[in-house]
Amino acid sequence: MPPFTSRLIETADTIEAVLDRLLALEPAPGEIARPARLIEAMRYAALGGGKRLRPALVVETALLFGQSGPGVLRTGAAVECLHCYSLVHDDLPAMDDDDLRRGKPTVHRAFDEATAILAGDALLTLAFDILADPQTDDDPTVRSALVLGLARASGLGGMVGGQMLDLEAERLSPDENGIRRLQAMKTGALIRFSCEAGAILGRASADEREAINHFGAVAGLAFQLADDLLDVTASAEAMGKATGKDEARGKGTLVSLHGVDGVRAMLDELVSEADSILAPFGPRAENLRQAARFIAVRQV
Amino acid sequence: MPPFTSRLIETADTIEAVLDRLLALEPAPGEIARPARLIEAMRYAALGGGKRLRPALVVETALLFGQSGPGVLRTGAAVECLHCYSLVHDDLPAMDDDDLRRGKPTVHRAFDEATAILAGDALLTLAFDILADPQTDDDPTVRSALVLGLARASGLGGMVGGQMLDLEAERLSPDENGIRRLQAMKTGALIRFSCEAGAILGRASADEREAINHFGAVAGLAFQLADDLLDVTASAEAMGKATGKDEARGKGTLVSLHGVDGVRAMLDELVSEADSILAPFGPRAENLRQAARFIAVRQV
Repeated sequence: MPPFTSRLIETADTIEAVLDRLLALEPAPGEIARPARLIEAMRYAALGGGKRLRPALVVETALLFGQSGPGVLRTGAAVECLHCYSLVHDDLPAMDDDDLRRGKPTVHRAFDEATAILAGDALLTLAFDILADPQTDDDPTVRSALVLGLARASGLGGMVGGQMLDLEAERLSPDENGIRRLQAMKTGALIRFSCEAGAILGRASADEREAINHFGAVAGLAFQLADDLLDVTASAEAMGKATGKDEARGKGTLVSLHGVDGVRAMLDELVSEADSILAPFGPRAENLRQAARFIAVRQV
Repeated sequence: MPPFTSRLIETADTIEAVLDRLLALEPAPGEIARPARLIEAMRYAALGGGKRLRPALVVETALLFGQSGPGVLRTGAAVECLHCYSLVHDDLPAMDDDDLRRGKPTVHRAFDEATAILAGDALLTLAFDILADPQTDDDPTVRSALVLGLARASGLGGMVGGQMLDLEAERLSPDENGIRRLQAMKTGALIRFSCEAGAILGRASADEREAINHFGAVAGLAFQLADDLLDVTASAEAMGKATGKDEARGKGTLVSLHGVDGVRAMLDELVSEADSILAPFGPRAENLRQAARFIAVRQV
């Protein structure tokens, strides 16, 4: 099996092609029309950028349970649509007011604010459309579980709730527990679900699914810690978005509480924890072990 | 059976109670937290207002096929969450920039813009959460069909796409076909789905479901025509929102093309068409017949 980084690039290419088809300019069967400007904004938001880490976690976890193919890729694309919608809305002037994303002007800069709001709404809706479609899995129990899992990970008790806490963080200055809760909701929940989705598609047992959920939570925390580190250590050029933002806004992160070295030590521990969780799965979990390492030490 | 208007009030009360429970301040099982300000904005947007016409259509259609109970009400609540999210986002400064909705300040006025965007996102997500939950129906095929139907009705080929066309209408001045397409997407699709959802819950045959879809499309068109009439004839006080907006914006509607009397005649025809579609269902479709009449002649 090639190393995780080459597999990540390969998955990103495949997901790009799947998203390109899902975001076709022509109306899908049963649709009245696809307004050109709206679909162009959705394509701008979703195509041609990003590591596609969340789809890769779907793919690698599904493979752990012997599942691959179009339905797995569609699920990865759905999670990516959800992720891209959250970036479009978070970048809006009323929220984080960002001008740059993945090295390009943000959607409301390249189009306008109304189009950005609607493109986000449509990407969010499309994510559920993809998951509920029989093309994703012929078992409706699996489709319903995917929809429910994504809704829980992304709604008021998950990602959207986390963004709300994040907006309030400058004013409320949460303590370490508050920061951890915020991060578990804002970024952790969707990364955790990406892993869980693979387990659902792979018909994992309840115990296996619980282990994968635990792995996903650890990976989500590692992702956020690495993100906080990169906000301090990386350049805007390397990241394709503004950096140094947390400090400029006086927003507490685990880096401001524990320092760069403290957070690097936490990341090492999380990688070990991921290894322990995956141990019962033996050598076939090697891809996920590498994924956890990649997440912890990524430079972009 | 009491007349539709009393049944509408009764359903509105029941749906209010269901929404109140779904939008509880305390986290649901499995949720990390529900940020107070976010859930308050969602409650502000979804509770204490509106005719609840879409849930009523779900309830009456389900009843036509002998189905009633908590799952039907949950489905009605999901459709209402979707409707309320669309109002919150459409009212935003970057979109229609409205200050008044259901007689109260709009969500971004009562809270702030960021909270309004997130409350809309969370209501949209909650709609799918509700539909995919086994509490709504114990058959996952039914749940998946509901999710897929709602996603199609509300996404880029449906409501969101219609709002995009509506924003462009001032600039592009669509012809009658263009106006009809816009309206079928922006308001028609969700009203049509409200009826279809009842047929899905009621395990309607393919033929029956097609008839109900047709009825829903007719009801959706009638709803929009009545809305265009009310924008011309009703006071802001009676409507609880600004009126006279279409003309002020130079936005073409079927009223500007065919006049008040022309549109009243179209509404009469649509009521007759609804009657014909419902004829094969016999007397048990009386509630839906009355619903179509109510939609066509409503004064608010």
